Amino acid sequence: MAKQSKSAIEPTREQDYPEWYQQVVRASDLAEKSPVRGCMVIKPWGYALWENMVRILDRMFKATGVKNAYFPLFIPLSFLEKEAQHVEGFATECAVVTHHRLEKSPDGLVPAGKLQEPLIVRPTSETIIGDAFSKWVSSYRDLPLLINQWANVVRWEMRTRMFLRTSEFLWQEGHTAHASEAEAVERTRQMLDVYTDFVENELAIPVIKGRKTAAETFPGAVDTFCIEAMMQDRKALQSGTSHFLGQNFARASGIKFQSRDEKEAYAWTTSWGVSTRLVGGIIMSHGDDDGIILPPRVASAHVVLLPILRKNADAAAVMEYTGKLADALRRVRYHGRFLTVEIDDRPVGGSRGWDWIKKGIPLRVEIGPRDIAQNAVFVGRRDRAVNAKTSLSRRQFLDTVCEILDDIQHNLFERARAFRKRHTLPVDDRREFYDFFTPANPARPEIHGGFALSHWCGAADCEARIKEDLRVTIRCIPLENQDAAGNCICCGKPSPQRVVFAKAY
Amino acid sequence: MAKQSKSAIEPTREQDYPEWYQQVVRASDLAEKSPVRGCMVIKPWGYALWENMVRILDRMFKATGVKNAYFPLFIPLSFLEKEAQHVEGFATECAVVTHHRLEKSPDGLVPAGKLQEPLIVRPTSETIIGDAFSKWVSSYRDLPLLINQWANVVRWEMRTRMFLRTSEFLWQEGHTAHASEAEAVERTRQMLDVYTDFVENELAIPVIKGRKTAAETFPGAVDTFCIEAMMQDRKALQSGTSHFLGQNFARASGIKFQSRDEKEAYAWTTSWGVSTRLVGGIIMSHGDDDGIILPPRVASAHVVLLPILRKNADAAAVMEYTGKLADALRRVRYHGRFLTVEIDDRPVGGSRGWDWIKKGIPLRVEIGPRDIAQNAVFVGRRDRAVNAKTSLSRRQFLDTVCEILDDIQHNLFERARAFRKRHTLPVDDRREFYDFFTPANPARPEIHGGFALSHWCGAADCEARIKEDLRVTIRCIPLENQDAAGNCICCGKPSPQRVVFAKAY
Repeated sequence: MAKQSKSAIEPTREQDYPEWYQQVVRASDLAEKSPVRGCMVIKPWGYALWENMVRILDRMFKATGVKNAYFPLFIPLSFLEKEAQHVEGFATECAVVTHHRLEKSPDGLVPAGKLQEPLIVRPTSETIIGDAFSKWVSSYRDLPLLINQWANVVRWEMRTRMFLRTSEFLWQEGHTAHASEAEAVERTRQMLDVYTDFVENELAIPVIKGRKTAAETFPGAVDTFCIEAMMQDRKALQSGTSHFLGQNFARASGIKFQSRDEKEAYAWTTSWGVSTRLVGGIIMSHGDDDGIILPPRVASAHVVLLPILRKNADAAAVMEYTGKLADALRRVRYHGRFLTVEIDDRPVGGSRGWDWIKKGIPLRVEIGPRDIAQNAVFVGRRDRAVNAKTSLSRRQFLDTVCEILDDIQHNLFERARAFRKRHTLPVDDRREFYDFFTPANPARPEIHGGFALSHWCGAADCEARIKEDLRVTIRCIPLENQDAAGNCICCGKPSPQRVVFAKAY
Repeated sequence: MAKQSKSAIEPTREQDYPEWYQQVVRASDLAEKSPVRGCMVIKPWGYALWENMVRILDRMFKATGVKNAYFPLFIPLSFLEKEAQHVEGFATECAVVTHHRLEKSPDGLVPAGKLQEPLIVRPTSETIIGDAFSKWVSSYRDLPLLINQWANVVRWEMRTRMFLRTSEFLWQEGHTAHASEAEAVERTRQMLDVYTDFVENELAIPVIKGRKTAAETFPGAVDTFCIEAMMQDRKALQSGTSHFLGQNFARASGIKFQSRDEKEAYAWTTSWGVSTRLVGGIIMSHGDDDGIILPPRVASAHVVLLPILRKNADAAAVMEYTGKLADALRRVRYHGRFLTVEIDDRPVGGSRGWDWIKKGIPLRVEIGPRDIAQNAVFVGRRDRAVNAKTSLSRRQFLDTVCEILDDIQHNLFERARAFRKRHTLPVDDRREFYDFFTPANPARPEIHGGFALSHWCGAADCEARIKEDLRVTIRCIPLENQDAAGNCICCGKPSPQRVVFAKAY
């Protein structure tokens, strides 16, 4: 691990952020492109990260009374059409199944057995789950109904990007039905809080909670709430959404119930989801010019042990010491699971150390004959400079490994929060607003100010104008820290509150 | 819980086994039909069971060095065609995606955006995973490669049946690549052993391990190994398969590596899977005329507490006692997880007790004012007669609840084993063989002898003849307990061993 001046990833973030992202994904071994347009292969290192995220989220959902279930992959076209805005929102990007077998022809195999009604591979499941709910609910006693599904979904994106926007992605979709509007709204907000807790405390990504404008609301929803995070190119990443669906989908699917006072009423429903997109958020929030940095609480593995096996005479002793240290570490509990430990016994000198840096493992531990003589280990933290390693006694390391990991987790969050703070500004002048979002250097069109907290009158026209001029959208109307009234950044008319304007993924 | 003479499920197993199965699934609340042809909705009670199965299996796989990953849902048609037998095997039953959006037309929305190459919704992933492996493997140092995927797959079955045969189902598919044939064969057998351990010890279903005949081998495999279980209608359920693929798929996908002696060679691969079909196996192995019986080690929940709330005066005290007992139970560890406890505070008298019997929960615990006075509970076991309940002191119950659950688990396995033993016979006479599989009562065509252990010469003709005459197939050539040579049950020619003949799902 010598070369300190040069970074492991080329280009650097500063040189070309979009290309840096692609190179980091490649170097990290998280995922790779597949031969299927827009679909990715999630490799073991990336899937282990996702599994940890799933495990934690699943526990959080269940703690609020949610139960898991599973619904069909396919949605009949007629179902999608039940909610007008909904089908409008997804019709332009969906995989359509039209046949159910293949048949030999002079040109080779061709689709055969045409279906009477085309099936859509689910882009989201409100309509098919709504159909089930309509059978499960008949009385107020059946409510609330709190269901979640872990599933793959497909949206035929024309421009795809690993984790951030892929044709197929993995996610969870929660769907709930309630007897009253107030209860449904409360659940919508409750799940937004769960997401906030998860993303901030487990992924170490600070977020802003807010409500979407009508233009950015989920097709068919009454209100969409979201959490928005700032990436290191100062763009926003929508990191989770929670929709209050009113009675729209209940009407479309016929989710009716007999109320306590024996009247028939439509249920009030919600839906909420996060996806593998969050992995993209981790990469872009914490990564540096040497690759990704995994937040310890969800890291695919916590520690890699790197035995230094230079002379044959020492090798056996070093490997034995390494194996025993691994065993000891694997008995340490860290936030509800045992530490995950890798051992890499490849020769020093090669790409070994750098491979693990690029994979973002929180701790690298070197073990050589000299260290063993002192019963010590040499520890490198992924959140510190590559060469800033510390010698710790074995005992000390075992006693403090959880603290060190928590400190890394804390550092990542604080760094990301400081970065966001530096690049978030209240902007009240229109000229200043346009400057804020205009790249100073035309060669690097992606660089701009960040998040502008500016006033908006509420008119769709103003929102559309800014989007057209600057490709800047209202990411959310923040739920917290709103200040007093002012004047719309676009038209100057009175505005009740500041909103978050940003370029977005 | 009065009516003892009448069973909760109609018809009984004896009266109409296939219909009993459908009624049990319905009454258990495990799953229901969906509006999508052949696809089911797995309801929370069924999904919790599957989650427990997944958790245990996943741990077992990882203990053998397997890592999880995720591959695309879609397979390009040209990929499927790479292995001739493979495409032959799946072409007649696959969902074909031909378009990527919907467009308005006078007839409503119609598929638009035709794909250049149709995509198949994965029926299994050998070809798409093989493509990834071809990039991941270049040297013997990259081997073995041990990967598993938890996923949904689609096979367009014309006749479907909940859990046993659905167009979409959930499963895991393991895929491994090795440097030598011997190592790949060993892995194939190792995973068969993992399945045997899982199905026998966790699901309490005894199985026969064996090899498939050529006619029943997975399309494209060299050898298919399987575990076969006997259901209560004496038919066989293939409960897991492990395929030795030789170099067939490595050739088709180009999985090549530089060997230790620097020669280029194709890898040897395996694949192995179990699916939600196993839930069908649980139902048909253990269910009785009152519904399913869940094996405690994978049960969706272990205990339901049924407070008896007759008088208002007592109700609060009973509910408090019930809540405290639930808390105490939820702190008890049972085979690596805490006990899952349900409380059902609906009125006595109604369907409450029977609902839980039909759902197959291992233990029902009644708590009334009189029980509380004695600090006792009234425990009903799902593997015993409905009215055979026992009064236990609270302390005694808490101290022995794990033993009781283990005893239920043990009983289920022993019952299933005894049943299989009763209906498995060595048959050496052709006439007797045909009688064995011919229903005595034409009104009940499903009833027959069970498993016949008979000699088979190895000729595909004899196998095909028996299949045509009796709809009986060779389920497997057992790996254990083979006896000496004999004469083929069909043609009389010499046979090296007995095989398992049966009707099958």
